[in-house]
Amino acid sequence: MSIRETAQAAKAASIQLAAAETATKQKALKSIAEALKANCEAIVASNREDLRISQENDLAAPLLKRLKFDEEKIADVIAGIESLVGLSDPVGETLAAIEMDAGLELYKVSCPIGVIGVIFESRPDALVQISTLCLKSGNAVLLKGGTEAANTNRMLASVIREATRRAGIPEGWLQLLETREDVNDMLKLDQLIDLIIPRGSNEFVRYIMDHSRIPVLGHADGICHVYVDAAADLEMATRIAVDAKCQYVAVCNAMETLLIHEAVGAQFLPGLQQALEKYDVEIRGCAKTRSIIDVVKAGEKDWKTEYLDTILSVKVVDSLQDAIDHINTYGSGHTDAIVTGSPESAAMFMDLCDSGNVFWNCSTRFSDGFRYGLGAEVGVSTNKIHARGPVGLEGLLIYKWQLKGSGQVVADYAGGNKQFTHRPLDKPFSTR
Amino acid sequence: MSIRETAQAAKAASIQLAAAETATKQKALKSIAEALKANCEAIVASNREDLRISQENDLAAPLLKRLKFDEEKIADVIAGIESLVGLSDPVGETLAAIEMDAGLELYKVSCPIGVIGVIFESRPDALVQISTLCLKSGNAVLLKGGTEAANTNRMLASVIREATRRAGIPEGWLQLLETREDVNDMLKLDQLIDLIIPRGSNEFVRYIMDHSRIPVLGHADGICHVYVDAAADLEMATRIAVDAKCQYVAVCNAMETLLIHEAVGAQFLPGLQQALEKYDVEIRGCAKTRSIIDVVKAGEKDWKTEYLDTILSVKVVDSLQDAIDHINTYGSGHTDAIVTGSPESAAMFMDLCDSGNVFWNCSTRFSDGFRYGLGAEVGVSTNKIHARGPVGLEGLLIYKWQLKGSGQVVADYAGGNKQFTHRPLDKPFSTR
Repeated sequence: MSIRETAQAAKAASIQLAAAETATKQKALKSIAEALKANCEAIVASNREDLRISQENDLAAPLLKRLKFDEEKIADVIAGIESLVGLSDPVGETLAAIEMDAGLELYKVSCPIGVIGVIFESRPDALVQISTLCLKSGNAVLLKGGTEAANTNRMLASVIREATRRAGIPEGWLQLLETREDVNDMLKLDQLIDLIIPRGSNEFVRYIMDHSRIPVLGHADGICHVYVDAAADLEMATRIAVDAKCQYVAVCNAMETLLIHEAVGAQFLPGLQQALEKYDVEIRGCAKTRSIIDVVKAGEKDWKTEYLDTILSVKVVDSLQDAIDHINTYGSGHTDAIVTGSPESAAMFMDLCDSGNVFWNCSTRFSDGFRYGLGAEVGVSTNKIHARGPVGLEGLLIYKWQLKGSGQVVADYAGGNKQFTHRPLDKPFSTR
Repeated sequence: MSIRETAQAAKAASIQLAAAETATKQKALKSIAEALKANCEAIVASNREDLRISQENDLAAPLLKRLKFDEEKIADVIAGIESLVGLSDPVGETLAAIEMDAGLELYKVSCPIGVIGVIFESRPDALVQISTLCLKSGNAVLLKGGTEAANTNRMLASVIREATRRAGIPEGWLQLLETREDVNDMLKLDQLIDLIIPRGSNEFVRYIMDHSRIPVLGHADGICHVYVDAAADLEMATRIAVDAKCQYVAVCNAMETLLIHEAVGAQFLPGLQQALEKYDVEIRGCAKTRSIIDVVKAGEKDWKTEYLDTILSVKVVDSLQDAIDHINTYGSGHTDAIVTGSPESAAMFMDLCDSGNVFWNCSTRFSDGFRYGLGAEVGVSTNKIHARGPVGLEGLLIYKWQLKGSGQVVADYAGGNKQFTHRPLDKPFSTR
């Protein structure tokens, strides 16, 4: 099949899947969990093959670790599916209901987006998580995983497809892409695919945006800040800064730049330096920072850099407004935190920082779908439309307007014979 | 100012405007209404100049009519502003609240998108409507109106800017673009502009999508269908078809193709033909249609065409499923209606038609923000994400995640010392 045919099959399935009964989708999710359990050995064997090839190709150790998909990981994804089964069906919810006139009722009803294209990294767990989130929300999905995981992904896709087919889900809803050319072909199919979610580097997300008319939900950099205010509890600030920088350096919600109010710079920075030394963090500072602690010089480029490493840039600012301006200029709109004892300063920071996640007196590392209690996430969005921050099920939904009449025509209202009532209704949509 | 500087000014203003008090925004809206009243004469004079130039340039009569902005139109837009004042502030609403742990509270709070670029047609009323919707929702806006309305738009923008400045709204929030080059420059500024709303032809919207990384909210064609089911009340079907086709032919929610179940084709089509003759509608039919009534032949091209004219294509279908397939293949996802006495058929049609607006027993012409009771609309969306159908205020909003802690760090939770509670909270966000 060409990628166009693949997408056409997904589109056809998506129409049926959008109208699937809740019970059918629940049965299919349970069927996937059982099939993963039943096919555990075969899945692990296919993963071992991927690991063997990747070792031969000298894949780096952290990537090998991400690629590994063993009994324990399978148990984890099954637990994820079970928690998804526990959630109510997000499709078919009446979001608003308005009587336009007697016998003319308007309903805004949640529905799936349609066909989603997801390009994800080497972890095979992502395939299971994304496909089950799409199934629960009634979307068809085209998946492109890491090439290193090709055997594992093929096995997982086949197990999931077979399990859902048995449960009565229309075939074609889950399609696997194999190559970069497949992805490039997919990007052209804006008549068939409704949303692309690219999980990967900033350059990769930009490449997708530049080569497709299809809307993209993704995130660019994660240049996250912690601002230590004049009214901060400095001990708390150190604890938060260490966590935000060091708890896991290679992730998008780790702090890259610390901003400190000049009133407390001299008091705070020596202790921070000491605390970060334990984690071998290299500090790069502005001129004022360097007048307080002995660190290398930070330049304009540092404020724009997502290190994803044990490096931290530090800048002394004159005021809260200065800190906000710095964040809105150099930040990536991902996650930014203020440490302060002042509710006024916190409110100003949270109102004026143009970021998807704005935090007060806690670490930037909390910015995550699981920690937020949203369940599995399909990705993190630094978009300003549709969905922002960690995106779970609700990011895979949209709505339709359903209007139920009894023969009404516009001419009667335009001519003034009839008037709209626009009265809120308190009932869900039904054709009965 | 270059367009980049213009957009930078708008971005800076947008940050302040996002945090503007409700009272300030309300005062500003009232101030605009007063200023439009006070400057009525000057506005009408500038519009007369536009009309004079356009007449000299032989602008078509319908376009001249749209361009005209007189005392009556000014009274209309003032009434629109007054109804906008009556709505509650959509910004700062707590959409969800979750306790992540004791003293660690997560709030999902509505906020403006930021900077919106709107390109609109010749009607000067659109400038007032769009800018006041943006103000109410706390967004800065770059506006590009029709060239024919240049003088009127300049006058309106200046009156609105001065009125809002007096009310304490940050300067720079409303920017006027003048030329197509300005628009092309704007399309490149994806770091400063968050959303583009192009109101215009399908080609124009596609041009915008192809030349920008900025998300676009717009609609392609309006190829709307009425399907007359086997179980339809045929008298009702005729009334609805006449309204959907003829009440206003030049709009996106007018019917372009009528589908009829073969069981009732012979009974229905002669009457329809007679009813449409009064409106000089040309019918183009499929082979089966032409075996019933004497009309010209419809080809593949007709099913894909938005006539926006007194032309209707008619196709006889074998089944409801056939009708749905036709709509999902040739439709534009705008508005599609079924006429039927069967609740089962209605439910199937509304579930399986992949359109933003799906109607039962009423005219497609109801698909409109004012008729829906949403207030003024910024546009109609056939997107599948963010906002769908008529888009009012809510389409100009997004949310941020605000997390309020007391020194929490992720290491404690990752290490297992602490557990998330994920308990729903029933209170709005506050820094107090």
